[in-house]
Amino acid sequence: MPFPYPYSRIAQAMRPSPIRELFALTQRPGMISFAGGLPDPAIFPVERFADCADALRKWGSTALQYGASEGYRPLIDWLAERMSRQLRTPTAAAQLIVGSGSQQLLDMLARLLLDPGDVVLVESPTYPGALHTLRNAGARFMLVPSDRDGVVVELLPEMVDRCRRETGRPPKLFYTVVNFSNPSGATLSLSRRQSLAAMLPELGVPVLEDDPYGELRWEGEPLPSLYSLAGGAGVVYASSFSKILAPGARVAWAVGEAPLIRRMVLAKQGIDLCTSMVAQVLVAEYCNRGHLDAHLGAIRRHYAVKAAAMSAALQTSLSGLATWENPQGGFFFWLHLPGRDAQQIFHRAIEAKVAFLPGAAFYPHAGETLGPCDDGRERLRLCFTFAQPAKIDEGCRRLAAVLAATEPPPPGDRRDDPRVRS
Amino acid sequence: MPFPYPYSRIAQAMRPSPIRELFALTQRPGMISFAGGLPDPAIFPVERFADCADALRKWGSTALQYGASEGYRPLIDWLAERMSRQLRTPTAAAQLIVGSGSQQLLDMLARLLLDPGDVVLVESPTYPGALHTLRNAGARFMLVPSDRDGVVVELLPEMVDRCRRETGRPPKLFYTVVNFSNPSGATLSLSRRQSLAAMLPELGVPVLEDDPYGELRWEGEPLPSLYSLAGGAGVVYASSFSKILAPGARVAWAVGEAPLIRRMVLAKQGIDLCTSMVAQVLVAEYCNRGHLDAHLGAIRRHYAVKAAAMSAALQTSLSGLATWENPQGGFFFWLHLPGRDAQQIFHRAIEAKVAFLPGAAFYPHAGETLGPCDDGRERLRLCFTFAQPAKIDEGCRRLAAVLAATEPPPPGDRRDDPRVRS
Repeated sequence: MPFPYPYSRIAQAMRPSPIRELFALTQRPGMISFAGGLPDPAIFPVERFADCADALRKWGSTALQYGASEGYRPLIDWLAERMSRQLRTPTAAAQLIVGSGSQQLLDMLARLLLDPGDVVLVESPTYPGALHTLRNAGARFMLVPSDRDGVVVELLPEMVDRCRRETGRPPKLFYTVVNFSNPSGATLSLSRRQSLAAMLPELGVPVLEDDPYGELRWEGEPLPSLYSLAGGAGVVYASSFSKILAPGARVAWAVGEAPLIRRMVLAKQGIDLCTSMVAQVLVAEYCNRGHLDAHLGAIRRHYAVKAAAMSAALQTSLSGLATWENPQGGFFFWLHLPGRDAQQIFHRAIEAKVAFLPGAAFYPHAGETLGPCDDGRERLRLCFTFAQPAKIDEGCRRLAAVLAATEPPPPGDRRDDPRVRS
Repeated sequence: MPFPYPYSRIAQAMRPSPIRELFALTQRPGMISFAGGLPDPAIFPVERFADCADALRKWGSTALQYGASEGYRPLIDWLAERMSRQLRTPTAAAQLIVGSGSQQLLDMLARLLLDPGDVVLVESPTYPGALHTLRNAGARFMLVPSDRDGVVVELLPEMVDRCRRETGRPPKLFYTVVNFSNPSGATLSLSRRQSLAAMLPELGVPVLEDDPYGELRWEGEPLPSLYSLAGGAGVVYASSFSKILAPGARVAWAVGEAPLIRRMVLAKQGIDLCTSMVAQVLVAEYCNRGHLDAHLGAIRRHYAVKAAAMSAALQTSLSGLATWENPQGGFFFWLHLPGRDAQQIFHRAIEAKVAFLPGAAFYPHAGETLGPCDDGRERLRLCFTFAQPAKIDEGCRRLAAVLAATEPPPPGDRRDDPRVRS
């Protein structure tokens, strides 16, 4: 009999991610998978990155030793320069922290800001990994509706008021991916960024502007960050090397006000002392050799081709069965299938050897939300970055065949969904 | 004015580590530092580790991609084989998890087991990093006294009873370093290990057997782990590559019962998705090339020489002023200076350009404990691994000169210490 471990309240509520179970199904032989949000390993700069191991030799006594909790100084300096330019705001080293992936940066922020039961605003739909992290800090959720221009920021003041009225406390954080959001692919429009920046002091809710995909724009003009528009006040900007270099490095960074960053550093001392110095030294060397910017163009072109392949394949195979927006960057297509149940389609699709993620993955569970909830029943996410273009076409054909063979239920037959509550 | 971030109760209670402030002082030019618990970079296998970057080339699409939250499979397999042998218990992959340093493994366990206000048993004195991590999970502490044979395990049943009586709940975890503890250098005796293993089912308190130093024994016979003696029930065994290869890799592992490890994997998904694959691939390659065992002998000999140098230097310079045990492994000497105040001596020592850590660092703060507390006033820790042997001798001479110039207070003059409570 296993030892009766005395699990905490939060641990008792932890459930294995349904997404992980779905992923296991997507690993079957012959499967064309649009499920995982993985970069294409074909575009990893393997040789140039491995060559940077010279730096492990050169700086061995630093790379192999414990490092500063805030990050490896040459990497911090490189980021400070880059962020000053990109965020159009002077960024000092004291405003930067390196984390083991942006997942860890969110985790740190959640632990610094949330007491169990506190409310977090998340865009609807949102990144499932963020829900998992926030849940483990005891969060409840309020869903901020979004459309093709990103979250409907005009709704925020009333939502914050409602949270105060019903819980006696304001939301403690607003988590949002402003560029090419996961899963919707939507980018927050300039006018909404400006509105949000203007209302932040009044709202009093700090924002985590998570931006893993901002550099992956192959069409249209980059928009100023919320961080820049707000002059840095109340906004933590986070980004990562995961989508522009290698997720396996687990190196990401956050920019914020120095007092907050100091607290994050303090939290990190207890979390893992420091981010892998080996990984940081390799990444810093890669950046300082100028490889990152040289490679970014190749990544953008690579994904633009794949996105075009999926756009064409969807047009050919799924017109009339689904609707979607063509993304200008990022990793995802977000499909709406009116009258369909994506979870049901998922299982038939797996049999037909094509995989995606059903919409339900991108919303909190029933009972976790304050205010309206959603179930994503008619939605699914397709990731176009991982599969090769010929497979993208074939995968969309398989999906269309599954949809054609699946009668949508007559309008009167849809059972009430207990998860849709207001 | 910075944005008014709504910090959580735990974050509000977080304080910058006094140790960090002390460390800043130890960085001055000309300082001989026995303060930090750092491996000697002179013994880092820089060339052989950097050569392993071949593996980044060979396994690039794995090393640079997201990995499994439980760890890189070839590393898990290597660890399973080694742990089966070392723990004398068959160890399956499902009983292993790789973490970003054993600090993270403790953090995960604390988050899985503790609700805010729960009590953790820690040996007295104990590793300050563990106090920081546990504090951030809302822990209070009960201090288990220790002597030259490690913690006095006979006291545990009464302590657990007291915790139940006074808080209505048992302690949720017992954190202990059984080999060459930090800071005391003490190793738990075989008979105490056997007693502890035998009483665990009755106690009902899980144990984290943290073992970063076990491989660093240059004298005497290794003792069976508590994990082995308990047949794995209720014990999580954790160890790390930090002291036997490189702390900068941030790669450590835990062995435990499969259901608990599954929960840790689930928690890790929300914490950082996975440990740096780049670091894991390099470490796995290093181990699979057989470098680890080949190098361990060199590390042991290297540190044995340094420990002997410090033992001789202490004997020459500090006989009659302090008492200590000579360690058979690990990183530390733990000095008792009867009638002295180590904090006061610290500041004079810094002026004399020799640094150590005052004993207070190794005990919880006032108000954090249930039951007796301690302040470590007459204690200090010397780390012998970092400084070179000639510096060790000179450092001990400087310390002796400081002590000789500092009159111990007359016995009647010691002010009552408000932190010593029962």
